[in-house]
Amino acid sequence: MKKLRHVLTLSDLTVDELKTVLKLGEDIKAEFKQGVRQKRLDGQVLGMIFEKMSLRTRVSFEAGMSHLGGSSMLLEEQHIGLGKRESVKDVSRVLSSMVDCVVFRAKHHETVAEFASYSTAPVINALTDKSHPCQALADMLTIKEEFGSFDDVSIAWVGDSNNVAASLIEAAAMLGVKIVVSSPEGYRFSQDEIKELTQQRQPGFDLEFIDNPLEAVRDANVIYTDVWVSMGQESEEQKRLEIFKPYQVNANLMAHARRDAIFMHCLPARRGLEVTDEVIDSPQSRIVEEAANRMHAQKGLLVWLLEK
Amino acid sequence: MKKLRHVLTLSDLTVDELKTVLKLGEDIKAEFKQGVRQKRLDGQVLGMIFEKMSLRTRVSFEAGMSHLGGSSMLLEEQHIGLGKRESVKDVSRVLSSMVDCVVFRAKHHETVAEFASYSTAPVINALTDKSHPCQALADMLTIKEEFGSFDDVSIAWVGDSNNVAASLIEAAAMLGVKIVVSSPEGYRFSQDEIKELTQQRQPGFDLEFIDNPLEAVRDANVIYTDVWVSMGQESEEQKRLEIFKPYQVNANLMAHARRDAIFMHCLPARRGLEVTDEVIDSPQSRIVEEAANRMHAQKGLLVWLLEK
Amino acid sequence: MKKLRHVLTLSDLTVDELKTVLKLGEDIKAEFKQGVRQKRLDGQVLGMIFEKMSLRTRVSFEAGMSHLGGSSMLLEEQHIGLGKRESVKDVSRVLSSMVDCVVFRAKHHETVAEFASYSTAPVINALTDKSHPCQALADMLTIKEEFGSFDDVSIAWVGDSNNVAASLIEAAAMLGVKIVVSSPEGYRFSQDEIKELTQQRQPGFDLEFIDNPLEAVRDANVIYTDVWVSMGQESEEQKRLEIFKPYQVNANLMAHARRDAIFMHCLPARRGLEVTDEVIDSPQSRIVEEAANRMHAQKGLLVWLLEK
Repeated sequence: MKKLRHVLTLSDLTVDELKTVLKLGEDIKAEFKQGVRQKRLDGQVLGMIFEKMSLRTRVSFEAGMSHLGGSSMLLEEQHIGLGKRESVKDVSRVLSSMVDCVVFRAKHHETVAEFASYSTAPVINALTDKSHPCQALADMLTIKEEFGSFDDVSIAWVGDSNNVAASLIEAAAMLGVKIVVSSPEGYRFSQDEIKELTQQRQPGFDLEFIDNPLEAVRDANVIYTDVWVSMGQESEEQKRLEIFKPYQVNANLMAHARRDAIFMHCLPARRGLEVTDEVIDSPQSRIVEEAANRMHAQKGLLVWLLEK
Repeated sequence: MKKLRHVLTLSDLTVDELKTVLKLGEDIKAEFKQGVRQKRLDGQVLGMIFEKMSLRTRVSFEAGMSHLGGSSMLLEEQHIGLGKRESVKDVSRVLSSMVDCVVFRAKHHETVAEFASYSTAPVINALTDKSHPCQALADMLTIKEEFGSFDDVSIAWVGDSNNVAASLIEAAAMLGVKIVVSSPEGYRFSQDEIKELTQQRQPGFDLEFIDNPLEAVRDANVIYTDVWVSMGQESEEQKRLEIFKPYQVNANLMAHARRDAIFMHCLPARRGLEVTDEVIDSPQSRIVEEAANRMHAQKGLLVWLLEK
Repeated sequence: MKKLRHVLTLSDLTVDELKTVLKLGEDIKAEFKQGVRQKRLDGQVLGMIFEKMSLRTRVSFEAGMSHLGGSSMLLEEQHIGLGKRESVKDVSRVLSSMVDCVVFRAKHHETVAEFASYSTAPVINALTDKSHPCQALADMLTIKEEFGSFDDVSIAWVGDSNNVAASLIEAAAMLGVKIVVSSPEGYRFSQDEIKELTQQRQPGFDLEFIDNPLEAVRDANVIYTDVWVSMGQESEEQKRLEIFKPYQVNANLMAHARRDAIFMHCLPARRGLEVTDEVIDSPQSRIVEEAANRMHAQKGLLVWLLEK
């Protein structure tokens, strides 16, 4: 029996474990590109609880499990009634007695934490209001593929300091990568949050906050942004669109970055808002590779957690 | 070709067949606990029609089929429009020509019966207003595991005389187990219903009706209850909560039962209503094992129906 | 690597390719009836985008993939937000990087065409407002099984000149089969449409338009109809029911056809409107075989597109 491990944030892994997971993802991807799909999780079953809509997360996990010889089942709000029809505790104990692993996309990070505390199967956070570790795995795989190593990489996060940014900072800290965050006032991480995210920081890691986006991207070869209005923030939409306007990633901003800079976005993008068509459709854009790497990186995580 | 069999109630099985199914479930569970998942239904496909929400039923069938090497597909109201968009007859003939087995959770037992009458694939009742044979299979497996045999078992059903109770009585009759039913006036089985449920009664079976719940549990080592308001009865909620109040399974009630008594519930539970936290979370509670046994017992049924 | 091919209409195939696909479907069906399910698409994953409800299409593809050793995932409106939450381009590039094939049921043919233009995986049209090639494959398989060859076959399409009729004409043209179309004024194909559908017409093909349904079926041994009001046309319901009334397929109409005539319908049927119970439930009716052939014919298409 494997030791039970949950991955709610990247900090649930040690630095070595994170590197092992990424390497597994890389190797499985290389095989996959050669047409090889080893059934390393033959007959294993993934339960996927989704409180919020998802395309990439769902398809990447479901296709990934199939390639590895396993299967998945999608459990949506109407199938469970989590916390309404039935307590989180009861659902967790019952579900985890039947499936080999649970992937959970939740509105509130606390729900996943509570669920994991009762689960007898590994739980993977597939996006909460606090973090998005699977996205950060895919991002780091994409960056490594682009530049060969993390040595000369400098990331600029431009926009809202959200869950995706949090996990990206965490990954950068653990892998010793430079990162600059450029967010408007009122939309920045607190000192406590930064402290928590950088607990396992390694040599090479450096975190700077630069308000002016044009300045922030100057040394960057990775420009990363995300939507300005996430699911659940629709009421703040007008206000947010105004405040984030100067943080749009457009051709002008890209021209201020390094020549070899790539553009990243976790998708879905609202074209014309946080990023313009000219950037997202440019040769610098890596959005399709990045999305595809969700599947490959998560396969690494699944195999690490579940392979007998 | 196997003979076509449907399981809409436990009476669709002979006593020997019921014992065979339970034994298969027991054996498959033992193997599963050893990490063995034999692909006894390799490549077979289960169609699951769900007119009502479900967690346990869906997950247990879907994970179970995967463990056995098969797969499942969930067909919900919006996918079929049964009886509205298309006649039950047409859906049954078409669906059963493509899948190897149909699991049907329906509002009305008659719908499943009509569907089965046209189906060329075995149909399993996964809960109707009348019966819940799969739950009873899991319950009997749980009781057998607890006490080693059914010889010294005495069940007390406390609360609403519903579909779960009906199948439990049917199982008790067929397996020769004592059962006491304690339901308030107006919520009891009719003589005709009891007659139908006990047609195949075996030596050792005994059925008593005792109104006072404290008295009803006196000789029992299995205390079983279910929600007071089922899906579709929401309009009667206030009235029912009042009437069933004295039938709550709490520490006081449990203290009146035998010392070795266990608590069972088919879930989801409404904690604080039909059962208190102190009971459902106590060492006497078997709700997690019981839910997990849904999967194991149903595997027995699936293998019995479908294995070549 | 196989050459990337999409099948949005039957004209995306050559006549020889169409025959190959049908033969594959026929052979796989024969094996299946012998209890043989070869895993010719082992580990391959099908993404199924459904903008409109479906029973047959979904079950036939999903069961078919399972029989072939692969798996499927259903992506509905609420899972994707195609064109709303995210552009068709982005969804296509991301999804097709993770799955081996995409089956798309769309409101608008243009959406599937746009999707296919970006997709790196084969795209199969599973019904649009313009065509329904998978249905035509199943229909031709059914007709071939019935009459042994297409030589003496004469089809009468009675009712609305819709997407199903369009693909049936296309198939008839490519396979050299006679067809008569009987539709009320205002509900007939344009000259341009007919030209497009019959581009690859072969010897033996003949297309006639006869307004009077009783006259139209005179030489036919296949009588085919479909619903008068399709999804999305509900507002025209009253008007349509009036106009199509004389085109009902009832015992009287069937009596005007050839003695060996069979009745076909792609289902779901609205019994009592476009077809009466006496016809759809008669020995002449082939609706169940036809629906089952969806699965067999599509397996032929999937294997042709995806087998390594």
